[in-house]
Amino acid sequence: MLRKAFQDYYPDQLSHCYGCGRLNEHGLQIKSYWDGEESVCIFLPKPYHTAIPGYVYGGLIASLIDCHCTGTAAAAAYCAEGRTMDTKPALRFLTASLHVDYLSPTPLGEPLEIRASVKEIKGRKVVVAAKLSTTGELCARGEVVAIQVPEYLVPE
Amino acid sequence: MLRKAFQDYYPDQLSHCYGCGRLNEHGLQIKSYWDGEESVCIFLPKPYHTAIPGYVYGGLIASLIDCHCTGTAAAAAYCAEGRTMDTKPALRFLTASLHVDYLSPTPLGEPLEIRASVKEIKGRKVVVAAKLSTTGELCARGEVVAIQVPEYLVPE
Repeated sequence: MLRKAFQDYYPDQLSHCYGCGRLNEHGLQIKSYWDGEESVCIFLPKPYHTAIPGYVYGGLIASLIDCHCTGTAAAAAYCAEGRTMDTKPALRFLTASLHVDYLSPTPLGEPLEIRASVKEIKGRKVVVAAKLSTTGELCARGEVVAIQVPEYLVPE
Repeated sequence: MLRKAFQDYYPDQLSHCYGCGRLNEHGLQIKSYWDGEESVCIFLPKPYHTAIPGYVYGGLIASLIDCHCTGTAAAAAYCAEGRTMDTKPALRFLTASLHVDYLSPTPLGEPLEIRASVKEIKGRKVVVAAKLSTTGELCARGEVVAIQVPEYLVPE
């Protein structure tokens, strides 16, 4: 049986995000999973996700870090409440701030690996740090401050 | 005669960026212009550029701020050298770091206006601050540290 990703647990109404919504047929549809204390997402950019030729577009890198970190925030919030992602109420996070440091140009053509870890959980806020690498080389670091979506936007 | 955008001056080899390359047919193809001391870019998101339904995807906002600011960095660097964008050598900037604060959910459906101003030019580095608004409402603030692309990557 295939393991479900964080995003596979999002309620349908909150699954239209261009970056991570499984119901957005135009979107990136990223998938995030726990791997020990970290979360991991593997994404293969399209040939047109280019910056200067041969390198990955920085906006895509920002998008992957953003959605992988908000997904990680949700998964961590369930853990903090001592319950699994298939239980109610559903938890979903929005981005309050996003920071990305581009350490070196990211070669285009191989899968990107984004790994994230939770730095802080406090009330409705989760701070998540991420690293993006390809072929074993660290190319970018990011940090997301994620805020829980208000209940009235989350369907039961 | 239509005014040319910053991106219309990029050399062909550096015009494939997913965010701002006029030769990337899958990309956003943003256009940036001076408006007094500020630069401005107007962009109408597609219906599928959604976060939660009815609101603009944060990764798109990050991408728009990123490319508009690197374009502004290039335009400002020409100004600093006392020459116009149709002169050689061509100047083009990459993103060293990107920060976005999402101040309020950005409604989807109306054009977004991104305005940027140069905070600092020092050597090959330009720091650019941006504000993103729609229907007159400020929704996000950003800052980009842009670094001039090495000459060997810029065709004569």
